[in-house]
Amino acid sequence: MAEEIARNAHLASTVLKTLSNDERSHALHMIRDGLLQAKDKILSANKIDMQTAIDNNLSSSLIKRLDLSINGKFDSMLDGIIDVANLDDPLNKITLATQLDDGLNLYRLTCPVGVLLIIFESRPEVIANITALAIKSGNAAILKGGKESLNTFKEISDVINDILLNKTKVPNNSIQLISTRDEVSDLLSQDKYIDLVIPRGSNELVKNIKENTKIPVLGHADGICSIYLDKDLDIEKAIKIVIDAKTNYPAGCNAVETILIDENLDNEVKSTILTSLLNEKIKLHIEPSFLSTLDSQIKEKYQELIVEATEDDFSKEFLSLELAVKQVHDVNGAIIHINSHSSKHTDAIITENKDTADRFLKGIDSSGVYWNCSTRFADGFRYGFGTEVGISTNKIHSRGPVGLEGLVCYYYQMRGSGQVVGDYLGGGGTRVFKHLSLDPKNITL
Amino acid sequence: MAEEIARNAHLASTVLKTLSNDERSHALHMIRDGLLQAKDKILSANKIDMQTAIDNNLSSSLIKRLDLSINGKFDSMLDGIIDVANLDDPLNKITLATQLDDGLNLYRLTCPVGVLLIIFESRPEVIANITALAIKSGNAAILKGGKESLNTFKEISDVINDILLNKTKVPNNSIQLISTRDEVSDLLSQDKYIDLVIPRGSNELVKNIKENTKIPVLGHADGICSIYLDKDLDIEKAIKIVIDAKTNYPAGCNAVETILIDENLDNEVKSTILTSLLNEKIKLHIEPSFLSTLDSQIKEKYQELIVEATEDDFSKEFLSLELAVKQVHDVNGAIIHINSHSSKHTDAIITENKDTADRFLKGIDSSGVYWNCSTRFADGFRYGFGTEVGISTNKIHSRGPVGLEGLVCYYYQMRGSGQVVGDYLGGGGTRVFKHLSLDPKNITL
Repeated sequence: MAEEIARNAHLASTVLKTLSNDERSHALHMIRDGLLQAKDKILSANKIDMQTAIDNNLSSSLIKRLDLSINGKFDSMLDGIIDVANLDDPLNKITLATQLDDGLNLYRLTCPVGVLLIIFESRPEVIANITALAIKSGNAAILKGGKESLNTFKEISDVINDILLNKTKVPNNSIQLISTRDEVSDLLSQDKYIDLVIPRGSNELVKNIKENTKIPVLGHADGICSIYLDKDLDIEKAIKIVIDAKTNYPAGCNAVETILIDENLDNEVKSTILTSLLNEKIKLHIEPSFLSTLDSQIKEKYQELIVEATEDDFSKEFLSLELAVKQVHDVNGAIIHINSHSSKHTDAIITENKDTADRFLKGIDSSGVYWNCSTRFADGFRYGFGTEVGISTNKIHSRGPVGLEGLVCYYYQMRGSGQVVGDYLGGGGTRVFKHLSLDPKNITL
Repeated sequence: MAEEIARNAHLASTVLKTLSNDERSHALHMIRDGLLQAKDKILSANKIDMQTAIDNNLSSSLIKRLDLSINGKFDSMLDGIIDVANLDDPLNKITLATQLDDGLNLYRLTCPVGVLLIIFESRPEVIANITALAIKSGNAAILKGGKESLNTFKEISDVINDILLNKTKVPNNSIQLISTRDEVSDLLSQDKYIDLVIPRGSNELVKNIKENTKIPVLGHADGICSIYLDKDLDIEKAIKIVIDAKTNYPAGCNAVETILIDENLDNEVKSTILTSLLNEKIKLHIEPSFLSTLDSQIKEKYQELIVEATEDDFSKEFLSLELAVKQVHDVNGAIIHINSHSSKHTDAIITENKDTADRFLKGIDSSGVYWNCSTRFADGFRYGFGTEVGISTNKIHSRGPVGLEGLVCYYYQMRGSGQVVGDYLGGGGTRVFKHLSLDPKNITL
């Protein structure tokens, strides 16, 4: 069963990738129209999911996330599909062109990765989002959404597949929805057909998937982001940024979890910054040696919000109004701490000193390194990618927010006129390669 | 022990990546000079390895590969280091620049992957090659070479580390040589510190490594390359290319293993091509239904070279003068066969029909897809990359021959002036992103 799903996806992907940008974008417009027509049906299915959630006493915030009928969510979902359709074609871009010899040219072209297995949370609009990204980038996708939105997903998926079959050139099985966890675990062994797994969900889910598959996994388990407060900082920026990075959405993977303070920062400035955080009801886990130097009046006034940090606190994603706080010798100390504790997501420095900032921007080993702005900017929409399938903390392929470009790779085309290696130096012959770099802009294949 | 090696490599990598191109390239020049000075010492060590190989009755071809003193191999090794030093800097290239808002800019810059674990065969000159690629690309590397060249590797590695320590800014532990298989297997669990494993060696070695690590593996186990002979082919090109692709170096991963013949190709042309292959002493494993249609005179004359193919023959890397041969309906049949049997290495079409060629070039799912030239061109030197660390059949990150560009990834820098997400639409505020695309060419950070 899992093998059949995966093989079918693979077969679909080999046709999907040959469609033109117009054909792929047209399919997205058709899907948008189809979903609009099926709005009532989809919202009825969504009501069933909501009722089940209420019956099961799920939290009100989760129920709100399930609800597709509020805040213009349905219409934004449709707009999002058109936004993706209108993005530049990510495929068949020539990124390298070399004349090897007369009548022998090498081209590097972008192409889809192939088959994606995407596991995502319960927000029902995400399925439309991901379908749009997959088709636009020429990838077949196998989707598994959170069980709380099962009926909504099923209805949306039926509409999408009906539209693809009847109104587009996108092959059958390009988008397949699966509904059980068992199917996911069987699919994780289909490394012959599935090229990339993208899990969006809890730390536990992502770790579990990474443990159980040989297919490359793109995503992040933890989002342990740090902000380093340099001695040359602007205090207003520092306070504003740290508060935003912690409080704007504490459960976000791009929320800050650790504050590193330059020990040469003015003591009064340190106190002012910490007090500002405490006034926002942020609980501070402060490293003992730094805690002991802290003004006792502050410690007393905010005693419920100040605790001694353990070593573990500096490798923790609090996902709540809590921060680990530590002093470091200087920017180099911050770099060493972050490179050994961060999850390679996003880390920031606050300083007015360009040299110090450059040192930090170059030295940190994360997918996002920021100067004087909030870590919360790590997001595909904010980066201008239209949307994202997730945020990657991998060291290869795609890093940071992953949009269309993260779903493509490349291949080499060689166009010859009968050339063989045996005629060239190194292969037994005497001909010498020209290796003439060509400008991709001037090439039409 | 393994953890210490890996952690030290990681720490070195975070410094190495901050060095300028001049500093990295200078280090390569120093290494070249150092190896030249130590030539006698290295060749003495090489003589010990050769004698051991002779004492152990290793094959003469292997002994020849071990010998660093013949055919100007030592000097080519030194030249190779300088070639890499002179390549363009692969790091800190700005590949995307976007103004998000006034004073808030996003940049995507190339950066090293981090720490590489490279396992390679016995050719002693490869260690210099790989060291050069690693340092130039800013990656720390842990190297394990074939045990037959142990003394030579040790001597070269000592020279390299001595030079790096005393004459360059490249940090200690950037290049570490390990000597036992046990160490390799322990290192494969150091996914916290090692970012990429590159095995160069037997199918068995590569498969074994893939089975036993969670670190991404870049390389190829099999090289099952196919050539499709279309009905509109030029017979001279076809014969020349297939013979080159099979006989130029049958043990190469880019040698052809399967020939697919368009059933609409003229029967006499089919016979001429097959006879040409048989005259080169190539053994043909021919699919039964095609075999039955073959001229009985040919079957008789070459009976020792013609056998009935099994299904397995079409998923086999013969690595010798043997080919699997099969008829397909047309180019689409060839695409379906290749996409389900090839190892995604390199596949070629021989045809004079551009439309058919385009269909093939777009439809095949491999890292190299060729038109009218030999699959043997799949090689970093021939592609103009200077050299290669290996050939990747992965679907993500790097595909085909992997040179400097395959050893880098990217990260995002954001440079702000105090901006927070809470001020923007979607984060709770009202500001709207500009998302103004900037030309990377005009940017100096």
